[in-house]
Amino acid sequence: MPLKKIDLNSDVGESFGNYKLGLDEQVIPLISSANIACGFHAGDPTVMKRTVAIAKANRVALGAHPGFPDLVGFGRRNLDASLDEIKDYVTYQIGALQAFAAAQGMELQHVKAHGALYNMAFRNTAIWQAIAEAVAAVDRRLILFVLAGSNRRELKAIGADNGIRMAFEFFGDRAYNPDGSLVSRKEAGAVIHDHQAVAAKVLKMVKEGRVVCRDGSEIEMAADTICVHGDNPAALELVKTIRESLQAAGVEIAAPATFL
Amino acid sequence: MPLKKIDLNSDVGESFGNYKLGLDEQVIPLISSANIACGFHAGDPTVMKRTVAIAKANRVALGAHPGFPDLVGFGRRNLDASLDEIKDYVTYQIGALQAFAAAQGMELQHVKAHGALYNMAFRNTAIWQAIAEAVAAVDRRLILFVLAGSNRRELKAIGADNGIRMAFEFFGDRAYNPDGSLVSRKEAGAVIHDHQAVAAKVLKMVKEGRVVCRDGSEIEMAADTICVHGDNPAALELVKTIRESLQAAGVEIAAPATFL
Amino acid sequence: MPLKKIDLNSDVGESFGNYKLGLDEQVIPLISSANIACGFHAGDPTVMKRTVAIAKANRVALGAHPGFPDLVGFGRRNLDASLDEIKDYVTYQIGALQAFAAAQGMELQHVKAHGALYNMAFRNTAIWQAIAEAVAAVDRRLILFVLAGSNRRELKAIGADNGIRMAFEFFGDRAYNPDGSLVSRKEAGAVIHDHQAVAAKVLKMVKEGRVVCRDGSEIEMAADTICVHGDNPAALELVKTIRESLQAAGVEIAAPATFL
Amino acid sequence: MPLKKIDLNSDVGESFGNYKLGLDEQVIPLISSANIACGFHAGDPTVMKRTVAIAKANRVALGAHPGFPDLVGFGRRNLDASLDEIKDYVTYQIGALQAFAAAQGMELQHVKAHGALYNMAFRNTAIWQAIAEAVAAVDRRLILFVLAGSNRRELKAIGADNGIRMAFEFFGDRAYNPDGSLVSRKEAGAVIHDHQAVAAKVLKMVKEGRVVCRDGSEIEMAADTICVHGDNPAALELVKTIRESLQAAGVEIAAPATFL
Repeated sequence: MPLKKIDLNSDVGESFGNYKLGLDEQVIPLISSANIACGFHAGDPTVMKRTVAIAKANRVALGAHPGFPDLVGFGRRNLDASLDEIKDYVTYQIGALQAFAAAQGMELQHVKAHGALYNMAFRNTAIWQAIAEAVAAVDRRLILFVLAGSNRRELKAIGADNGIRMAFEFFGDRAYNPDGSLVSRKEAGAVIHDHQAVAAKVLKMVKEGRVVCRDGSEIEMAADTICVHGDNPAALELVKTIRESLQAAGVEIAAPATFL
Repeated sequence: MPLKKIDLNSDVGESFGNYKLGLDEQVIPLISSANIACGFHAGDPTVMKRTVAIAKANRVALGAHPGFPDLVGFGRRNLDASLDEIKDYVTYQIGALQAFAAAQGMELQHVKAHGALYNMAFRNTAIWQAIAEAVAAVDRRLILFVLAGSNRRELKAIGADNGIRMAFEFFGDRAYNPDGSLVSRKEAGAVIHDHQAVAAKVLKMVKEGRVVCRDGSEIEMAADTICVHGDNPAALELVKTIRESLQAAGVEIAAPATFL
Repeated sequence: MPLKKIDLNSDVGESFGNYKLGLDEQVIPLISSANIACGFHAGDPTVMKRTVAIAKANRVALGAHPGFPDLVGFGRRNLDASLDEIKDYVTYQIGALQAFAAAQGMELQHVKAHGALYNMAFRNTAIWQAIAEAVAAVDRRLILFVLAGSNRRELKAIGADNGIRMAFEFFGDRAYNPDGSLVSRKEAGAVIHDHQAVAAKVLKMVKEGRVVCRDGSEIEMAADTICVHGDNPAALELVKTIRESLQAAGVEIAAPATFL
Repeated sequence: MPLKKIDLNSDVGESFGNYKLGLDEQVIPLISSANIACGFHAGDPTVMKRTVAIAKANRVALGAHPGFPDLVGFGRRNLDASLDEIKDYVTYQIGALQAFAAAQGMELQHVKAHGALYNMAFRNTAIWQAIAEAVAAVDRRLILFVLAGSNRRELKAIGADNGIRMAFEFFGDRAYNPDGSLVSRKEAGAVIHDHQAVAAKVLKMVKEGRVVCRDGSEIEMAADTICVHGDNPAALELVKTIRESLQAAGVEIAAPATFL
């Protein structure tokens, strides 16, 4: 019986100059894919170099985590950039991180858009298309992380059209609507705080390909990677709980390049 | 008898957002190597993409032109960055431009440090060493442009130690001291404004490997590339004059990757 | 018979570092109110100092022209900043310019939001309210420039609530809809290119308080200030044409602090 | 017997966007003068507003803490800016903070240069002169903080020439050379870690106007303000120790505007 595989990804390398953010040294050993900030919304060249080194030391796959050029807003504010500008921002940031990877004998595995860019893409497939074009033009071996949900077929087609693999992402700590979208953070119950509940939800998705929505209904949900966090000690504990739950169930935690 | 070859390089891609700088469309067809700003002291992702396209259309070799993160100072002010920071800045900027090159099916030929970074390296060989290490770590096929002068042997050794080629740069419009250094811009006669004199000086260096210094003495000067400018119509005229002078003498204008 | 007065305002001080933009020395003598960029979307400290000096030499009233922190986008892209962030951005930029004014023995007359911030305020009165609160908190003597149109009563109330004067702005080179809004730049005929037509439109608004809309209907339009441009020689010619037309009709061009 | 007064100042407001730095809420109640970062090397508009509010609530005097435009370097790297640029940077940053003070019904008390700008001024009196000119031009009531040391007479003259007060600053946790300069951080023993020793040193300077140098010699040292830190819990403990020591000796901790 083949072992089921799943990826754990986390945003890292978000420090900047004198400013420290995130427990990178502690979360990176717990994940299989590192989304590394590239200097636009967070990160700087020195932080990028160090983060690549930590990921390399832990045999964790490297990914570019491009965001909007909005450091003071941490890339979390929608910016009315054109599709061409978005492509150029993604291209630039992938390249910057590729150089740090190359300098340490590594290659990037994936690209995951950050914050407002990710959220805007979720609402406007033309942005996924633009990001996919940028990724494909730089290197077709790069995997693009996208939100798992109801538009899976459409996203698959974008990946196929551009000749790149898509990894679908699942949020274990977020409530889902019956249409497969995430419950807005503005609504009560959008974020699940109970660690065991999160771990159980992740495991169900991995084993059964299904998620129980906020209204109690159950829908199909196929994902390749789980988003986890390393911002604080509690977040680290949650990652450990998810890992233990998955491993106890015989699920292998592995970077998507190994199974996509 | 083999044709003598020389490179003409110019700083391009220095526009930023709504701000236009330089006559890139006009100067790029006249040169063989384009030093493209990478977003720190000048340039932005969209400008970089466009500049790569112009260079590609004109079959001009692409180079990264990394500078200090000082947009308001155009990278012209000395910044007391550490050697590690300099390496990280160079790595980042090379990578960013590589991605735009890759997206258009191109590769970079060279790296030339900009402004204060170039000038600081001239005064502190440890900076050349840092830049060479950064370049070599990203891609040993990249050629590093350095100032031709009295420390040629030392610079050659840095290149050899890092396994990269060095292209030595000559300034036809600048007066030289007998020790092979440039006359400071603060001194009278530092910049040569007569176009025919500049062209003659360039030709002498190319054909004889010698330059007449400001004090009338003549010294050896071996260089692979000539720095020219495209800031204004007069600068373009000077480039044309230099080109015609070289071509009339049977010198081929060619990117250094073809002869180094 | 009292002379009718009208203000001419223009965005100036938009250069940045090595980048030059706008014919400030030429347009400032033609206007009565200068909207000076404050370093977020354009302008830098040195440019601000120089622009204040030019305005002072020409006895032109000074205004802060705050924009979003988006230099590469020139403040022209909508940014999903919170109302508190907008207030803080406006406060900061007013203060920065006030210091340059104070250092030259001057005071600011007004504040005019730039680009996307102005446009977003037009669509969302809560943003006008936020900007008015920021202006009033810094100095109640400052006049806030707002778009003249159908929501005049609402904007007046915002001014009154915050204890500040509002100057209503008219665009002579833009077509108007019958509801008093500007025809979108995406539609044909949005911008009027004929200089005499623009001057006539401005004069009609000043003398009669009316504007002929794109559909031929005529509506009331009361404004205190006319937006003009100094980007290029043609724009300067238009300003001169408008000035001559107004002066020939006995209209005095004067800063709004003299008549509001 | 008149009570001796001394100021305690600390750098605060150094957070930026999503990045938190310093224990401002805890250190501000312990000091009498707050040096608030102004958005160039640290701080952003929202942080500035909040920091002014904390200082106001604690009746702590407000000061602008201008630095070089080098966020990634935290303003700690020497930048070869011209004297005019330095003046413009200082003017801009003072103004920006003044607006936040005005919006809360407050005025600034002082200006203290940050990091590399402070250190460069220490080595080049022309920079103190430039900073003093900028401060005086904006508002002659502002006090300029300068390093107490051997060039006291020269600095006094700069203050007098510009019509502004100077507050001399003492570092209780730093070793002094017999010429009144600080022992370089690169040398052993430059920083004093023992809290009681620091408090005793501060008290001796306040009561006797003298400091024991690293070599055991004793020199005159007259200062108006003591630099303290709020970066971490240990720094807070040191501030409390210094306060208790001073108060036990009958020294009043007070902002310099009350006694200069």
